[in-house]
Amino acid sequence: MLVVPEALVAGLVSEADALEAVRGCFAAMARNEARNFPVVREALGEGRQYGFKSGLDTAGGMLGVKAGGYFPGNAGRGITNHQSVVYLFDPESGRPTAMVGGNLLTALRTAAASALSIDLLARKDARVLGIVGAGHQAGFQLRAAAKVRAWERVIAWNLHPEMLPKLGAVAAELGLPFEAVPLERMVEADAIITITSSPAASLMARHVKAGAHLACMGTDTKGKQEVEPALVAAATVFTDEVAQSVTIGEAQHAVGAGLLDATAITPLGEVVTGAHRGRASDAEITLFDGTGVGLQDLAVAGMAVKRAAERGLGAVVEV
Amino acid sequence: MLVVPEALVAGLVSEADALEAVRGCFAAMARNEARNFPVVREALGEGRQYGFKSGLDTAGGMLGVKAGGYFPGNAGRGITNHQSVVYLFDPESGRPTAMVGGNLLTALRTAAASALSIDLLARKDARVLGIVGAGHQAGFQLRAAAKVRAWERVIAWNLHPEMLPKLGAVAAELGLPFEAVPLERMVEADAIITITSSPAASLMARHVKAGAHLACMGTDTKGKQEVEPALVAAATVFTDEVAQSVTIGEAQHAVGAGLLDATAITPLGEVVTGAHRGRASDAEITLFDGTGVGLQDLAVAGMAVKRAAERGLGAVVEV
Repeated sequence: MLVVPEALVAGLVSEADALEAVRGCFAAMARNEARNFPVVREALGEGRQYGFKSGLDTAGGMLGVKAGGYFPGNAGRGITNHQSVVYLFDPESGRPTAMVGGNLLTALRTAAASALSIDLLARKDARVLGIVGAGHQAGFQLRAAAKVRAWERVIAWNLHPEMLPKLGAVAAELGLPFEAVPLERMVEADAIITITSSPAASLMARHVKAGAHLACMGTDTKGKQEVEPALVAAATVFTDEVAQSVTIGEAQHAVGAGLLDATAITPLGEVVTGAHRGRASDAEITLFDGTGVGLQDLAVAGMAVKRAAERGLGAVVEV
Repeated sequence: MLVVPEALVAGLVSEADALEAVRGCFAAMARNEARNFPVVREALGEGRQYGFKSGLDTAGGMLGVKAGGYFPGNAGRGITNHQSVVYLFDPESGRPTAMVGGNLLTALRTAAASALSIDLLARKDARVLGIVGAGHQAGFQLRAAAKVRAWERVIAWNLHPEMLPKLGAVAAELGLPFEAVPLERMVEADAIITITSSPAASLMARHVKAGAHLACMGTDTKGKQEVEPALVAAATVFTDEVAQSVTIGEAQHAVGAGLLDATAITPLGEVVTGAHRGRASDAEITLFDGTGVGLQDLAVAGMAVKRAAERGLGAVVEV
């Protein structure tokens, strides 16, 4: 078995790699060649969350699980609050084949999903990128989005404005003008990524212009919410996995309020494979509800393992 | 992180160790200091089964998951069909602490559960041990049972009688007279362990004498069945976890037929802690429905890791 420690991952998987891995994984899901197993997610007490996302990709020969969670006491110990590891197995024999640090991979695969949705669904002439949220993950979303359109500028809003300069620094690295704006000015954006852990909607229908694409990436559990349900209902909605979208994703609220039918939500993989045409008009608002699935974790972990093996990196251990 | 490969486990955890680990784990469950998370179990096709059993033991400071399954093609490759690995994490930080080969541990913890039930529930004067089933796991059950009573002899039945001599060899190792018998002669047994993967009942009420203890260890999924529902209904029923007992355990059939109420089933941990008195009379038939819970896996894995660390065994790897 190959152990690829967290510290090696940054040198093995780029934003562009993650984008291709997630593209392939969503396509395999749409072709019914890959499926996610039920998610386990448990509260451990004192704000700690832990769980397992797992799946099987028959076409890609991948079987595995990401074990991870959120440990709010970690920051005080100098380690990140989000901790995860991906374990891979040979789907033929069940033997463990690899173990990969999952912290950076999780950030990359989440950013890759929103970038893929922009690539597939935003207008080709999209030039202004809006970001709602400015936490640790927002920078990853921006870096990945920079791969799929020729942005002219980035505008951003965060509940705590003092966090915005850090995101501005990422924009500067990418050579993109950056401006902190009130939510009302999100109407200037051609694509908007929401990446908050908010319990209530920040982005309203009046903040979004016709023809915009939204990638809602923050809502991954019951009770979280980033955008007004009426905005979700007015958009053409895509997602990674419909079952998660309507239960723990952004669509939970619009579906719960009877404003949106689950059958109207399209897996993004169907746009990858061509089974769905994607954006129908320049005026349509498209919305990607990114909930995060285990197969995304396996896809990027598999890439990290392949690269590490090719380069003789990581530790081979007996199991 | 410490990696303890499968090959080291036999030298680290004995039958007696596993018995104490499972005793402690069942007691922690009964005290609500430990709980199992929902089980994931998925068919992968071609007879392959894979899944995850996980849990948190707050008292013991254990968080982890056993990933494993059944791969019928393995025998042809010279490796065991049952494959599993146990992963442990620091419940405070979520950091991975250990990985342990889970094949032998699974056999030991399953055997330990039936031995614990015999220790707690069989009559003190039990001298004849019956075994229904003679597959790979049956030998483990016999070895563990030998730790908890002074058996005078062992009688056994198997659907395929040609497999019985292998079990007889284990009895011989333990210095116990062994006899292959028809099911009708199970009435001689003071305790009976059933350890088959049968889809239909073998052991009937007429095969069991008053005062006997049954440890039903083979039924761990819907559709498996080892004993007649009327026998379950006539017994005082104990289990590792009531929720599993009534859905995937031996009790599924008696409960489904309306012969047994779930509220009448007692967690074995309550007998360990003294919350339940256990056997009420010499004439009572007691039955332990062993379904297998993730916390058992964590308990024996934790012991293997502790021993390996003390002895400087296993591989320390960066994650």
